[in-house]
Amino acid sequence: MPDAHAAFDALCQHARKTSLVESIESSLCWDERCMLPSKAGEHRTEQIAYLAGVVHQRMTDPRVAEWLAVLVDSDLAVDPHSDAGTTIRQLKREFDKQTKLPQELVEQLSRVSVKGQRCWAEARKNNDFAAFAPLLTQIVDLTKQKAECYGYTDHIYDALLDDYEPLETTASVEKLLTELREELVPLVQKIAEGSRQPNLEILTREYPVKQQRQVVTEAAKRIGFDFSRGRLDETDHPFCTDIGPDDCRITTRYNVNDFGDGFFSVMHEAGHGMYQQGLRTEQFGLPPGSAVSLAIHESQSRLWENLVGRAASFWQHFYPVVQQAFPAALGDVDVEDFVFAINDVRPSLIRTDADEVTYNLHIITRFELEQDLLTGVLDVADLPEAWNAKYEQMLGIRPDSDANGVLQDVHWSGAAIGYFSTYTLGNLHAAQLFEQARIDLGDLDAQFAKGEFAPLLTWLREKIHKPGQCYTAAELAQKVTGKPLSCEPLVRHLKTRFGDLYGIS
Amino acid sequence: MPDAHAAFDALCQHARKTSLVESIESSLCWDERCMLPSKAGEHRTEQIAYLAGVVHQRMTDPRVAEWLAVLVDSDLAVDPHSDAGTTIRQLKREFDKQTKLPQELVEQLSRVSVKGQRCWAEARKNNDFAAFAPLLTQIVDLTKQKAECYGYTDHIYDALLDDYEPLETTASVEKLLTELREELVPLVQKIAEGSRQPNLEILTREYPVKQQRQVVTEAAKRIGFDFSRGRLDETDHPFCTDIGPDDCRITTRYNVNDFGDGFFSVMHEAGHGMYQQGLRTEQFGLPPGSAVSLAIHESQSRLWENLVGRAASFWQHFYPVVQQAFPAALGDVDVEDFVFAINDVRPSLIRTDADEVTYNLHIITRFELEQDLLTGVLDVADLPEAWNAKYEQMLGIRPDSDANGVLQDVHWSGAAIGYFSTYTLGNLHAAQLFEQARIDLGDLDAQFAKGEFAPLLTWLREKIHKPGQCYTAAELAQKVTGKPLSCEPLVRHLKTRFGDLYGIS
Repeated sequence: MPDAHAAFDALCQHARKTSLVESIESSLCWDERCMLPSKAGEHRTEQIAYLAGVVHQRMTDPRVAEWLAVLVDSDLAVDPHSDAGTTIRQLKREFDKQTKLPQELVEQLSRVSVKGQRCWAEARKNNDFAAFAPLLTQIVDLTKQKAECYGYTDHIYDALLDDYEPLETTASVEKLLTELREELVPLVQKIAEGSRQPNLEILTREYPVKQQRQVVTEAAKRIGFDFSRGRLDETDHPFCTDIGPDDCRITTRYNVNDFGDGFFSVMHEAGHGMYQQGLRTEQFGLPPGSAVSLAIHESQSRLWENLVGRAASFWQHFYPVVQQAFPAALGDVDVEDFVFAINDVRPSLIRTDADEVTYNLHIITRFELEQDLLTGVLDVADLPEAWNAKYEQMLGIRPDSDANGVLQDVHWSGAAIGYFSTYTLGNLHAAQLFEQARIDLGDLDAQFAKGEFAPLLTWLREKIHKPGQCYTAAELAQKVTGKPLSCEPLVRHLKTRFGDLYGIS
Repeated sequence: MPDAHAAFDALCQHARKTSLVESIESSLCWDERCMLPSKAGEHRTEQIAYLAGVVHQRMTDPRVAEWLAVLVDSDLAVDPHSDAGTTIRQLKREFDKQTKLPQELVEQLSRVSVKGQRCWAEARKNNDFAAFAPLLTQIVDLTKQKAECYGYTDHIYDALLDDYEPLETTASVEKLLTELREELVPLVQKIAEGSRQPNLEILTREYPVKQQRQVVTEAAKRIGFDFSRGRLDETDHPFCTDIGPDDCRITTRYNVNDFGDGFFSVMHEAGHGMYQQGLRTEQFGLPPGSAVSLAIHESQSRLWENLVGRAASFWQHFYPVVQQAFPAALGDVDVEDFVFAINDVRPSLIRTDADEVTYNLHIITRFELEQDLLTGVLDVADLPEAWNAKYEQMLGIRPDSDANGVLQDVHWSGAAIGYFSTYTLGNLHAAQLFEQARIDLGDLDAQFAKGEFAPLLTWLREKIHKPGQCYTAAELAQKVTGKPLSCEPLVRHLKTRFGDLYGIS
């Protein structure tokens, strides 16, 4: 019987090197989306597929099974929330999952997802779903194969969801989403009938991109994103990626006639980025230094984007900066009118532009369609029509084109099926955490109004970032807020914020 | 005895995959120099060292020896200039060299060169040679170890030179450089005493960076750099790198009070880039699709930078573009005065800013110092003084600081010792090729004056780019120009160009 400590060291060294390779893959993916020359796609696909193959080989290395066999019943594994216990538990989970996938399937999925994203971008630009359909069909088929390899008890979707939201189930997510939907639909209606309505014209005035760049960079700095350990670049679809323990990259886009598009994308991605930057660097590449789940990740982005970034108190502090940067657009606009405008609620076509209330209805749509695609109830060819029908039913509006409908999101093109519901779970976590932060930290609004974001960030670092994967998402909610995840805090937040703004009871 | 064709296919597949990994390394190195957040260096070093290790492991894979054993005496190897013959010969050469280096040394060299470049950049900024000296000492030691592993007959420098300029020898380079020096020193003197002198103030007027970006991009496009297969970015030290068969990236820097710095860097790097873009993509990753040597690479950059880019005929075509972009600076300047100014010759401290004539004296300085470092005649600690003394002796001027002296070049910090002489060899090749192009293509100046660069580029594609490594640099010179490489064409070119400009006989 080999020594548990020696096995643990070997396992950690192996896992860290695997993460090193994954971080190289992240660098290539970032470059693919930010920098790649138009004709260089084919070679990039091969580079990424090669690394995906190496990662999979390393993750399924038979030595990992040997080390784990020594470790799972060792003293090191006794405390499941210790760094060592977490490392062993999570690497075992990962090994068990990865060994179920053939190398061939992993490389195929990698290739098709890189190709898929390029093909989707083109199809979206040309509003041509048919051009994307064959690849999407391939992606759905390969994803089904992946789910079958993983195995599942109740629903094929469980197998996929588990990649993004470990240990979460379709049934439990469905219950939360149904509850939420029942609250949101009447709220949207009430807001539409509210006694006050915002002046949206304010936000579509001219906001020169150069000044936008300065303003969003300043905002990201003030809330705590560390530019010495990260970057901000421009892409069509904003994202955040991690290329190393001190190399977190976020992106945004700018629209000269839409202040909110660039600004809130940066607040959102900076929220993701600060989570990454708050993970323990000495645990980089190991589970205690890794994000828990996509929902927890999203809770951080949505917290900074919405709960902080759209709060009146935040703008008490930051509005002068913005007003000074855009004197032509905002010189004559009161902060109250500005805050009302950035909190406009109304059914719209594009998820990423949606307000805090209707956003979750966009997610429910996708959650349902994904399940239908996987179970075969829905063919890829019929997806645009099904999409449009669901939008009419859920939001009361019908997409004017596939570009503004089924082609709007990158996820499926990148073979990320089972991902969307984590967005809404993230909103729920964000609201629940924020309620607790108010209890623990006192008058947050007074702090924001003075430009003090460090107390909140420090609280998040302690409670959420530093534990890494030592607790599951569900355990973390329970541990930090004393309650299991529920819809109530989000519903309370939305009713308060929008009740006040729109003058509804 | 296995089938030669099967062995050849296996060898090529293996080599292509190795190149794939090298191309990933190139992507990380590009990102390191163009994009990396300030605190992200350590992890990047590990990423690159890992890939360097993988490349070395693949290059020294024992199966390569088995395949080569079948191939070296097979029919496929009979014609040394065929694609197959070239592939076998060059992969054997590479295997023989790589297997002489221990994996440990390769990874150490990779790490120290990444660290070295960061340390050098800092030291240069702070004019602090002492801060860089310990790493440089390590680099020199490791480089000596590398040379000893390779082995050599006459001079330790031969072993290193061979990495950059295959089959070239120190003795032969020394002979060429000595001949050249004997021509250049009196020419510099005559120019200094010339009856006309340029008005240099023209080039230090205000050239807004935004317009510089547009102008250099336009120039690169017009001479033939393909932006759908490449990019242009900004770095402190301009360079060109190849991340894939359709992904060639060049960089430059801009100085608002120095038009030439940005412009000629781009002409230079675009020359490198067009060589890469002219290699046969279907042979990417194999010797027939790879550059012959650094000297040939440099011949392409110098040809476009100097022989084309500083020619009066080029500016007959392009001056209106530049004059329109910078009306304040150039509105009142005749094209003749502009051309004279960009052809100013005078001893200066910085190699990369040097004119066509004195440039080679900078190279000779480094060539001599490198040899002294390797043989132990010179200690790293004494290098700044030796550098300054050589500048006084060779160029008649003494550096005012180490930042403008021994710390000016990136090469040694990246463990590239043995590299510099290829710059002057490149100048010799460029002039000799250009003389031949004039013979083959007729009145090149008339073509340039009309903005026609395609005939020259097509000629270079055929004669130099497409053969890849099917001929050595020396064979290529002989094959294309009918003569071995000599100093005469460059000396003829310099005497003609500067004789005319400066009014000397």
